[in-house]
Amino acid sequence: MKEIKVGIIGATGYGGIELIRLLSNHPHFQIHAVYSSSQDGMEISEVYPHLANILYTLKKIEPKEMAKELDIIFTATPSGVSSQLVPQLLKEGIKVVDLSGDFRLKTEELYEKWYKKPSASIEDLEKSVYGLSEWFADEVKESTFIANPGCYPTATLLGLAPLAQKKLIQPNSIIVDAKSGISGAGRGLSPIVHYAEINENLKIYKINQHPHIPEIESILARWDDQIGHISFSPHLIPMSRGIMSTMYVQLNKEFSAEEIHQLYVNCYEDAPFVRVRKLGEFPSTKEVSGSNYCDINVTVDERTNRVTIVAVIDNLVKGAAGQAIQNGNIMMGYDQQTGLNVLPIYP
Amino acid sequence: MKEIKVGIIGATGYGGIELIRLLSNHPHFQIHAVYSSSQDGMEISEVYPHLANILYTLKKIEPKEMAKELDIIFTATPSGVSSQLVPQLLKEGIKVVDLSGDFRLKTEELYEKWYKKPSASIEDLEKSVYGLSEWFADEVKESTFIANPGCYPTATLLGLAPLAQKKLIQPNSIIVDAKSGISGAGRGLSPIVHYAEINENLKIYKINQHPHIPEIESILARWDDQIGHISFSPHLIPMSRGIMSTMYVQLNKEFSAEEIHQLYVNCYEDAPFVRVRKLGEFPSTKEVSGSNYCDINVTVDERTNRVTIVAVIDNLVKGAAGQAIQNGNIMMGYDQQTGLNVLPIYP
Amino acid sequence: MKEIKVGIIGATGYGGIELIRLLSNHPHFQIHAVYSSSQDGMEISEVYPHLANILYTLKKIEPKEMAKELDIIFTATPSGVSSQLVPQLLKEGIKVVDLSGDFRLKTEELYEKWYKKPSASIEDLEKSVYGLSEWFADEVKESTFIANPGCYPTATLLGLAPLAQKKLIQPNSIIVDAKSGISGAGRGLSPIVHYAEINENLKIYKINQHPHIPEIESILARWDDQIGHISFSPHLIPMSRGIMSTMYVQLNKEFSAEEIHQLYVNCYEDAPFVRVRKLGEFPSTKEVSGSNYCDINVTVDERTNRVTIVAVIDNLVKGAAGQAIQNGNIMMGYDQQTGLNVLPIYP
Amino acid sequence: MKEIKVGIIGATGYGGIELIRLLSNHPHFQIHAVYSSSQDGMEISEVYPHLANILYTLKKIEPKEMAKELDIIFTATPSGVSSQLVPQLLKEGIKVVDLSGDFRLKTEELYEKWYKKPSASIEDLEKSVYGLSEWFADEVKESTFIANPGCYPTATLLGLAPLAQKKLIQPNSIIVDAKSGISGAGRGLSPIVHYAEINENLKIYKINQHPHIPEIESILARWDDQIGHISFSPHLIPMSRGIMSTMYVQLNKEFSAEEIHQLYVNCYEDAPFVRVRKLGEFPSTKEVSGSNYCDINVTVDERTNRVTIVAVIDNLVKGAAGQAIQNGNIMMGYDQQTGLNVLPIYP
Repeated sequence: MKEIKVGIIGATGYGGIELIRLLSNHPHFQIHAVYSSSQDGMEISEVYPHLANILYTLKKIEPKEMAKELDIIFTATPSGVSSQLVPQLLKEGIKVVDLSGDFRLKTEELYEKWYKKPSASIEDLEKSVYGLSEWFADEVKESTFIANPGCYPTATLLGLAPLAQKKLIQPNSIIVDAKSGISGAGRGLSPIVHYAEINENLKIYKINQHPHIPEIESILARWDDQIGHISFSPHLIPMSRGIMSTMYVQLNKEFSAEEIHQLYVNCYEDAPFVRVRKLGEFPSTKEVSGSNYCDINVTVDERTNRVTIVAVIDNLVKGAAGQAIQNGNIMMGYDQQTGLNVLPIYP
Repeated sequence: MKEIKVGIIGATGYGGIELIRLLSNHPHFQIHAVYSSSQDGMEISEVYPHLANILYTLKKIEPKEMAKELDIIFTATPSGVSSQLVPQLLKEGIKVVDLSGDFRLKTEELYEKWYKKPSASIEDLEKSVYGLSEWFADEVKESTFIANPGCYPTATLLGLAPLAQKKLIQPNSIIVDAKSGISGAGRGLSPIVHYAEINENLKIYKINQHPHIPEIESILARWDDQIGHISFSPHLIPMSRGIMSTMYVQLNKEFSAEEIHQLYVNCYEDAPFVRVRKLGEFPSTKEVSGSNYCDINVTVDERTNRVTIVAVIDNLVKGAAGQAIQNGNIMMGYDQQTGLNVLPIYP
Repeated sequence: MKEIKVGIIGATGYGGIELIRLLSNHPHFQIHAVYSSSQDGMEISEVYPHLANILYTLKKIEPKEMAKELDIIFTATPSGVSSQLVPQLLKEGIKVVDLSGDFRLKTEELYEKWYKKPSASIEDLEKSVYGLSEWFADEVKESTFIANPGCYPTATLLGLAPLAQKKLIQPNSIIVDAKSGISGAGRGLSPIVHYAEINENLKIYKINQHPHIPEIESILARWDDQIGHISFSPHLIPMSRGIMSTMYVQLNKEFSAEEIHQLYVNCYEDAPFVRVRKLGEFPSTKEVSGSNYCDINVTVDERTNRVTIVAVIDNLVKGAAGQAIQNGNIMMGYDQQTGLNVLPIYP
Repeated sequence: MKEIKVGIIGATGYGGIELIRLLSNHPHFQIHAVYSSSQDGMEISEVYPHLANILYTLKKIEPKEMAKELDIIFTATPSGVSSQLVPQLLKEGIKVVDLSGDFRLKTEELYEKWYKKPSASIEDLEKSVYGLSEWFADEVKESTFIANPGCYPTATLLGLAPLAQKKLIQPNSIIVDAKSGISGAGRGLSPIVHYAEINENLKIYKINQHPHIPEIESILARWDDQIGHISFSPHLIPMSRGIMSTMYVQLNKEFSAEEIHQLYVNCYEDAPFVRVRKLGEFPSTKEVSGSNYCDINVTVDERTNRVTIVAVIDNLVKGAAGQAIQNGNIMMGYDQQTGLNVLPIYP
């Protein structure tokens, strides 16, 4: 059985160590080397003692060397870093799954408006495929460069896709009230995620200003170009992991809760990582923790003909490292579930 | 200075002990006795060791005796208990602030539809005044019987009132995404609020089915009878205290964020417990914890002409015991801030 | 490759679902059936929605039937249940790993004194082997019935064993200050583990009265019969998982920190699940979360010749289900790490 | 009634804002000005939005100006800052309560050994009185300069004092297993107290190396100069507030649990902030949260003649700001409870 040699760039962030955790049980992907621009030369176990028995020395990023040794690279680098780095890797002919936001938007203007940073070039933007593989697996399969979806967009798009794709949504009617555990903010120090400040606290931030908004809107527009703008409010929840996206949508036709629920069941019957829950049973974030599942349910308020959709994921798995491996599996011709078939950790 | 003799019924619930905490520093209200139907004869400190130095023996509820001894009673009893008990107290001529949901709705049908319990009689329902004193202080002042607002309705109505009262809201356009700390579920045991189940978890429940919905809708209708139905999704947040109500409203005219913010500033300039935050600064729940404040802010999404309003309270203070004392102060002719002028506890 | 048919009794407790989680990735052990005395007939996913895609109907416990179908049974039943049930299973000739405390003590008197329940018979007590496999693997290998160690004893005994076995401990000098996450208290409802009561709280309980005390003392006595009594204080920590045992021991000879550290390194060099950390680096509970590791370190206070030992485990993995599978592996002739080689989940 | 003009230096730390919270309800102490060396010119509400309605501009520290305006200053400055600043304030004749560790040790050598910083001069060290007012109120009353006890020493010394003062403790037998909520680490950013790292985690640190060790030992030696050294292990607990000190002591005579308990009851019968709990009932940290109480209980393990003592405080109140105000009250001739008579906030 061929062994796929994997590199992880940005191995010392939360996305990076989650890749290490998940890949350590992958039957075909073998971590060949881990890279860090800021901490090269250190052992990974010095940075993260929970990896005490893992022997990886963090290496410098050298694209030419990597090309010789690696089959695929996961770049878990911050926005603004990937846009510089990934084109060099692509030039060397390595397959790349990029976990940053740098290649998810398809025009330079849109990127620079929302990220307030210089964009990658339009040529490079166009090379990437958006890796929401439940909907774009065919493109992923053919691609060598995946822009891995953001954490909020993953839950939100999986939640909205069945309605958007059937063109059932009234223009400009989508409201996304998104909630994330604190690991979503990364490992960088900040007063906002200082324990004593965010513990026992609930914080709303970047209302209608989060860079995941254009990502969601542009993918929705691929399914329904009349769908318009969304209102999007992210909140920080005092827990380490988990995202819940609570979505409110005005339908353009009348449906019962049963009909809409059935639509979702049908849409996702072949998607092993999407669990549409039983009618009336709504998912909690802990019910997918540590796993690659996205659990979803819907209901209709007959008084207002408004749909409420709830989608939950583990932000570091389905919202980052897990989905990246799922994309890597598809790119490499493996079953998408390979190495990802673990149950949620509960309680 | 006259001392007001206070009784607390349901002293062993979280609302009850919060009344004890806050009243222990009230200059005029004196706790005369505390009552419990289930634990009478016990010392309060046996039930709650944090009150180790407080000497109250829980007494049986005997309305006639109470009438002789007390000036005002706070009933922190569960729904379905107050509806039986409060009429007996009123008959004895005692002033009552009821913290339950039993007298907040104004028809028997509405109560029974949403609470699935027998209602108090229409005569008794009509006796009560809804104690959202920022808006109904004149009625509270004249009343002897207050239906203290629910926790979600307090944050939600204070957040929506300026727009509703100016009739700026499109019919059926209000969406309330409400989040509560776990103490809101009370002290009753249940798997849902078992620590290992709800810690590191985020749970949505009773979507469009929570009994606070008709309470919110009927008060909104007093300001604008075209306002229609709301969508309402409550969520449990893994923290002990705090409510955030995130509200989305479609305006029927165009406004800038500055204009709407100014409207809120003007509305609440004489409300000492409502702090409309600076333009652009949104409140977190911890910033009001332990206090009677409701902090609010608003913004407008120019892309959709939709307003997002954020209101936070401590569910046990402004959402229960604090607001009850505020109402008691007004009924008794004291400044509403008496005994409530404490800063939030942070961090 | 032969498939081992596994049954889980008590599948709806936290130990039970952790067995399901871990066994779902075991290459040889196949969950054949799950059993519950109280919820038979229900789907496991009705009890635990995080298992939404798992199809197990909870079955009645019928020892004769089980004997025909199963190779090994894990009994994750409460104390007092196993003592009745396990002898019936043994009689049918099935291999058993019992996760309860019912067979860990070796006299009826000791059990009844500490558990305040009727003991299993002395004959049955004597059949079991204590499954601390880092120290008793030879016995485990030959056994058909394992008393799986308790959560506190696992961390504590792995921490004390190197000193006890070398007879370096002054009699009656051991103090164990033990701390556990709340899942250790199980899924049974109780005010003590009601979210609002134990969140943001730190509680000491059963000082010198916990039934894990005689378990620890009797195993220590196997290594050093002069070791005497321990002082043992368990504490509840507001987190879901994790145990830290902080141990204080008076040495009967003088040693440097380096010497004692080296003793530990040597003792555990062949134990894949015990990670003796680098000199001076002490483990935190999260660094083993979700994994079967026990991380340990030691230091010596030269001012008092007292050793401080710190050992951490995940109470549900190494402290319960993981260790049970480790024992099952050894009993069945597999490498002890089979199916357990997963990294901690962090953060 | 004379108003005491108070200044707070270091107002933007957690000790500082807790002083603001508590003093806002003090009938005699009036906050005249708040000072910050790093953020002068800012409004306190810009730093801490929970103080949105409080109008204090942070002022520069100018001892001469302060002397003209203020009656008493609370210095909630970090170690190494107070040692420089406080002597200047004293020279101006202002009364000072210093919340830092800079004046608690009584020789320069001891300070520099444990704090690894230059000490204040021996002259200045000797000017201060150690403000554990339950035991040294007479000295506090006569003093103009208080070294306010550290958080761990407060709980630990109140727990050990009755035994130490009666000389009942075997030399070198004291073990202190101390646990603190995360606010004890202050507001400074660090990976250790980054939310995602310390949430759901339990961390031991600075074993036998914490600078509170010599503070505890030197005060114990005032009561019993044979008491020797302590073993001291501090732990970080994933909660915002609260300290529990679990202490293990070998007695030099035999006593029953009842006798020792009675000794504690007698010792503290006139101490309004120390609540010795009923025999057999051990305190939890949440039971004192937000209050100035120290709750204590003891038991004796007859098997080893070892006493276990448990003492809990709110680290920011009795362990910092509350105790500082208690000392200020005594210095100024007020009842020690003035302004501090609030119940714990629970749940």
